[in-house]
Amino acid sequence: MINVSIIGVTGYAGEELIEVLLGHPQARIADLSIRRDAPMHIAQIHPKFKGRLDIVCGLPDVKKIASTCDVVFLALPHTVSMEIAAKLLKAGLRVIDLSADYRLKDVKCYEKAYNCKHKDKDNIPQAVYGLPELYREKIKKAKLIANPGCYPTAATLALAPLVSCVKGIDLDSIIIDAKSGTTGAGKKAADALMFTQVNEDFKAYKVNAHQHAPEMNQELSKLSGKNINVTFVPHLLPLDRGILETIYVKKTGSKPQGTRGAIVEVYKKFYKKEPFVRICAEGIYPRLKDVAYTNYCNIAVKEEGKQVIIISAIDNLLKGASGQAVQNMNIMFGFEEKAGLL
Amino acid sequence: MINVSIIGVTGYAGEELIEVLLGHPQARIADLSIRRDAPMHIAQIHPKFKGRLDIVCGLPDVKKIASTCDVVFLALPHTVSMEIAAKLLKAGLRVIDLSADYRLKDVKCYEKAYNCKHKDKDNIPQAVYGLPELYREKIKKAKLIANPGCYPTAATLALAPLVSCVKGIDLDSIIIDAKSGTTGAGKKAADALMFTQVNEDFKAYKVNAHQHAPEMNQELSKLSGKNINVTFVPHLLPLDRGILETIYVKKTGSKPQGTRGAIVEVYKKFYKKEPFVRICAEGIYPRLKDVAYTNYCNIAVKEEGKQVIIISAIDNLLKGASGQAVQNMNIMFGFEEKAGLL
Amino acid sequence: MINVSIIGVTGYAGEELIEVLLGHPQARIADLSIRRDAPMHIAQIHPKFKGRLDIVCGLPDVKKIASTCDVVFLALPHTVSMEIAAKLLKAGLRVIDLSADYRLKDVKCYEKAYNCKHKDKDNIPQAVYGLPELYREKIKKAKLIANPGCYPTAATLALAPLVSCVKGIDLDSIIIDAKSGTTGAGKKAADALMFTQVNEDFKAYKVNAHQHAPEMNQELSKLSGKNINVTFVPHLLPLDRGILETIYVKKTGSKPQGTRGAIVEVYKKFYKKEPFVRICAEGIYPRLKDVAYTNYCNIAVKEEGKQVIIISAIDNLLKGASGQAVQNMNIMFGFEEKAGLL
Amino acid sequence: MINVSIIGVTGYAGEELIEVLLGHPQARIADLSIRRDAPMHIAQIHPKFKGRLDIVCGLPDVKKIASTCDVVFLALPHTVSMEIAAKLLKAGLRVIDLSADYRLKDVKCYEKAYNCKHKDKDNIPQAVYGLPELYREKIKKAKLIANPGCYPTAATLALAPLVSCVKGIDLDSIIIDAKSGTTGAGKKAADALMFTQVNEDFKAYKVNAHQHAPEMNQELSKLSGKNINVTFVPHLLPLDRGILETIYVKKTGSKPQGTRGAIVEVYKKFYKKEPFVRICAEGIYPRLKDVAYTNYCNIAVKEEGKQVIIISAIDNLLKGASGQAVQNMNIMFGFEEKAGLL
Repeated sequence: MINVSIIGVTGYAGEELIEVLLGHPQARIADLSIRRDAPMHIAQIHPKFKGRLDIVCGLPDVKKIASTCDVVFLALPHTVSMEIAAKLLKAGLRVIDLSADYRLKDVKCYEKAYNCKHKDKDNIPQAVYGLPELYREKIKKAKLIANPGCYPTAATLALAPLVSCVKGIDLDSIIIDAKSGTTGAGKKAADALMFTQVNEDFKAYKVNAHQHAPEMNQELSKLSGKNINVTFVPHLLPLDRGILETIYVKKTGSKPQGTRGAIVEVYKKFYKKEPFVRICAEGIYPRLKDVAYTNYCNIAVKEEGKQVIIISAIDNLLKGASGQAVQNMNIMFGFEEKAGLL
Repeated sequence: MINVSIIGVTGYAGEELIEVLLGHPQARIADLSIRRDAPMHIAQIHPKFKGRLDIVCGLPDVKKIASTCDVVFLALPHTVSMEIAAKLLKAGLRVIDLSADYRLKDVKCYEKAYNCKHKDKDNIPQAVYGLPELYREKIKKAKLIANPGCYPTAATLALAPLVSCVKGIDLDSIIIDAKSGTTGAGKKAADALMFTQVNEDFKAYKVNAHQHAPEMNQELSKLSGKNINVTFVPHLLPLDRGILETIYVKKTGSKPQGTRGAIVEVYKKFYKKEPFVRICAEGIYPRLKDVAYTNYCNIAVKEEGKQVIIISAIDNLLKGASGQAVQNMNIMFGFEEKAGLL
Repeated sequence: MINVSIIGVTGYAGEELIEVLLGHPQARIADLSIRRDAPMHIAQIHPKFKGRLDIVCGLPDVKKIASTCDVVFLALPHTVSMEIAAKLLKAGLRVIDLSADYRLKDVKCYEKAYNCKHKDKDNIPQAVYGLPELYREKIKKAKLIANPGCYPTAATLALAPLVSCVKGIDLDSIIIDAKSGTTGAGKKAADALMFTQVNEDFKAYKVNAHQHAPEMNQELSKLSGKNINVTFVPHLLPLDRGILETIYVKKTGSKPQGTRGAIVEVYKKFYKKEPFVRICAEGIYPRLKDVAYTNYCNIAVKEEGKQVIIISAIDNLLKGASGQAVQNMNIMFGFEEKAGLL
Repeated sequence: MINVSIIGVTGYAGEELIEVLLGHPQARIADLSIRRDAPMHIAQIHPKFKGRLDIVCGLPDVKKIASTCDVVFLALPHTVSMEIAAKLLKAGLRVIDLSADYRLKDVKCYEKAYNCKHKDKDNIPQAVYGLPELYREKIKKAKLIANPGCYPTAATLALAPLVSCVKGIDLDSIIIDAKSGTTGAGKKAADALMFTQVNEDFKAYKVNAHQHAPEMNQELSKLSGKNINVTFVPHLLPLDRGILETIYVKKTGSKPQGTRGAIVEVYKKFYKKEPFVRICAEGIYPRLKDVAYTNYCNIAVKEEGKQVIIISAIDNLLKGASGQAVQNMNIMFGFEEKAGLL
């Protein structure tokens, strides 16, 4: 049994972390904190936890956390995580950061994408990108986890087998048409996110200009050994939870490479032992209802002539954020990887 | 053909007024204004009007409006309407005010319900409550229309025949359980009105403490000749448009009065010639889909022993606001009452 | 650790039972069955269980179930449960029936409400109405649990303290204005339940004619010792999960009885030790988002002169069906009552 | 003033045709018919028309229609239209067919896409594809209009300027990622279209296998003079109305062709005089809320290196079906093209 601390519990990722950890057999929520001077009971912040959790949330107290906890989750906005992570690491704590602050190895790339200065460059090199399907061994020993973004999780899992194991793929042709539920946009009040603006609406936003694209490019380039720049168009869905990405990749050469259906076999082999990746049978496509409120990523692969179409779906708050963070924690502490996640 | 001005076009009522008036055969939108210094084209404010309406909206200019327009709609928040209505009336314009400022004849009651001072008491007496089904004759000659609130429109139409024409009703027993779509809450960004807070949610709010209750009480008391205080509980629906009210009234006496089904006949007679009130056949109940995007009010009446259940439904932006305002305009200017509303 | 069987897993209640039991520390899903000749893998029926549960569902085999399982959940339509329950009981199994078949002690009342003949009258007397807050002791020893309906669960929990402990209440005045999410209507395809018919719509149905009203009347009459007939109007909400009931009750006498706020104290005392009932603080009202995906019932009480307004909210699939069924199982087998439910 | 007949008024397209024509200044609904023996009043079929339209709908009577009407709309399923269109044409009526029956010039292509035999091949050659932006002159004189499908309308308008006027485009690279509201799936009850299946869900369907793809290919090939086969992946949105298509096309050559921003200028010029096509300003993208309940098609064009991204949005029931049908009628009878459509 370990003790965990969560810093930043007012947003959706923090709320979902609590929800997951309350059901975890080997982790105990020992400390919760917020970025507000006036302490609040967690049931005031989230009435749904009334009677389930009895903790008053104050400002984070590194000393106290270090003396009582084994691991800290940072469910903070980007640029805020990097202000506290160094202190926590120095105090000997293991840190799982759900923000973007330690995901990009190229500081300039981070500073451009997030339009700010990085304040803790020293800890970037040791940060492990927390995608268990790719980096399980490194995660085991990591002191600092950079928990992946929601869009990049769905994209990287959908493309990893293709860019790393399949020949005859045009790596310049990758198009990711992504659709996300509205919890992905966070909890802060904004005109464009009002019910009457989102309900019965659908639209693209940040067309080929979303801050998650560099993260996808970093991971896909690493996997393929080539420089990859995806075309990435996110859209906003009128629903609470879930990301679905429809991904288009071209095969090269005058004729399609390999036998039809071959690629899906590569996927099945690649993810054979993974507890949270499911490859759909032929003719079945991922839908959000099958992954919402779970930590699963469902993936379908269809080949049509020179066109490969891959569809992946996750719950943006679970496999896209808090569920994956707990999966990382399980790996770090040697627990069953599914603990608390089924 | 008349020229109309709308003051306040950023909110839902103003937007819907434009939508209705663009299809009106005898009214031309001649002037639009907003409460911001920097002028904006209407298509910047509402992109849906691009190519349909070519007007730049500046601050309201009473002199200009008076010299070019026949009538002014005020689609302003309460307390703001009363600051400009007097000037417009003085300039000889006829005014249809969609706010609450001139609805309550009892100033103290207004000031308590809206928690503010009234600044134009002199014009309250001449204001005609713009519910055509009850006050058509007065509306014809009115200079100032107090356009009814959305909840009171549905409630008053649902109860008018009962409280004014049916004997043996317990006027102290009226319970109005109301459910409104989210456009009813206005366009201003607020935490509680975010998509992720309203979607897949349902809740009561301002339980027996909503500012529309005094308006209902005023109208029902006037109709019945007795002092009526309703129990009014509004709820927020996860949908864009529509109000449905389920109303419960008890009959008095040891036995139910009259023959079963008699009350619905009173309703049919009461609204026989009304173009926008429809009484449902037995066993049919109003649903929002049948009134959304229309100016209709659908009403069903069911008697069960001593209990009378009345259900009414309207589109809160049309019969509950802008449609009714145009219906009032039609009456004021001698147009066909349905003009622009079918 | 016990072995459980679920008969009827194609509908929402069966699906939710699996979901809950998969996370239960002391129960193992040993057998699943359907009412179709051709066996299907559970992941074919519900793709979300792919990789989580490996069971082929055939027709129910009483002998096999009796030899391998400790308890059987019947997630079957009414009239179907009573065809198999007797056989299961005879084979020595404990049965938790989620249908309506054993809820009403008065057979004629059942036959009228459900428009059918009862085929297992002999087992009605021993059936325990599975509302733990009222019948915990009987549930412990029960062989057959009649798991309560969703509407009656929310209504009975909301009214139990009032009708059993508070004096000066007009028991003839109870009005239950109920609103349910669409999973409450079941999974069978029907014109009126199509997405395009329910989305952006809201309506009342079975006005004072719903088959759940007799169940409420039975329970409330038992609690109060008087004959109670509620006015019950259900409505359909455009959302997946949750029931919210706004309940109106009048006090008797020329003046309100007791001091204001007194009634809520009765509720707090009544439910003091209950793990799944939460009484809201003053000014806070239940909302579906706070109970969805939980086994909680949230209740608020407001007094206003002679009017008492009670609002209760549950998740119709959990506290209103499968969650409550597992709560009953926990009580029957001496497990921690919250096991698998937090 | 002309008299119109609509055959097939039970579905969404027929309902929407009535809605549009009720507001049309020069067309009178003279006849409505259904494919059922027992006649029904239109207000029984669609309660929302109660008090607005007083017509009893029986089986279609070609003789009667010919003697009273000027034009007939067929709002029938594919394969049903072709059974009656020939008779109507022979009787001298002008016909606007909203089904797919006369859209594809290649009969074999039709028979494969719709999996049936064509029964009226003789009338295919004279059928005019009713996309006014491309075929206005032919529509004026047409006897038989094949009203375009919803997906092809949004795709063809989005791609027409590009494939017909811009050089250096890779016509083999066209990917259409389409998202449609659920009215697009029709009104027939189906498990997959139940509220609880569609709400809070999102998924792809008929991946690169939708029957509308051949229609797109026919129109785009005609425009470009080359054989075009698009990659077309439709998705189902949890909302009532609207189609949004995100379209990806590659430029050819080692460097991007033309100056940046040049392509959007081609679009502006191409649609300069079109009453129902709006090109978005830079940085603005189409959203469903801006086109829902209108006959507009909003289009945005973005170039990024060799990638061109085009986004188009329409209301699937208006510009994608009934609005476009009335636009065609307006052109056929020399009315103002916007009549009844603003």
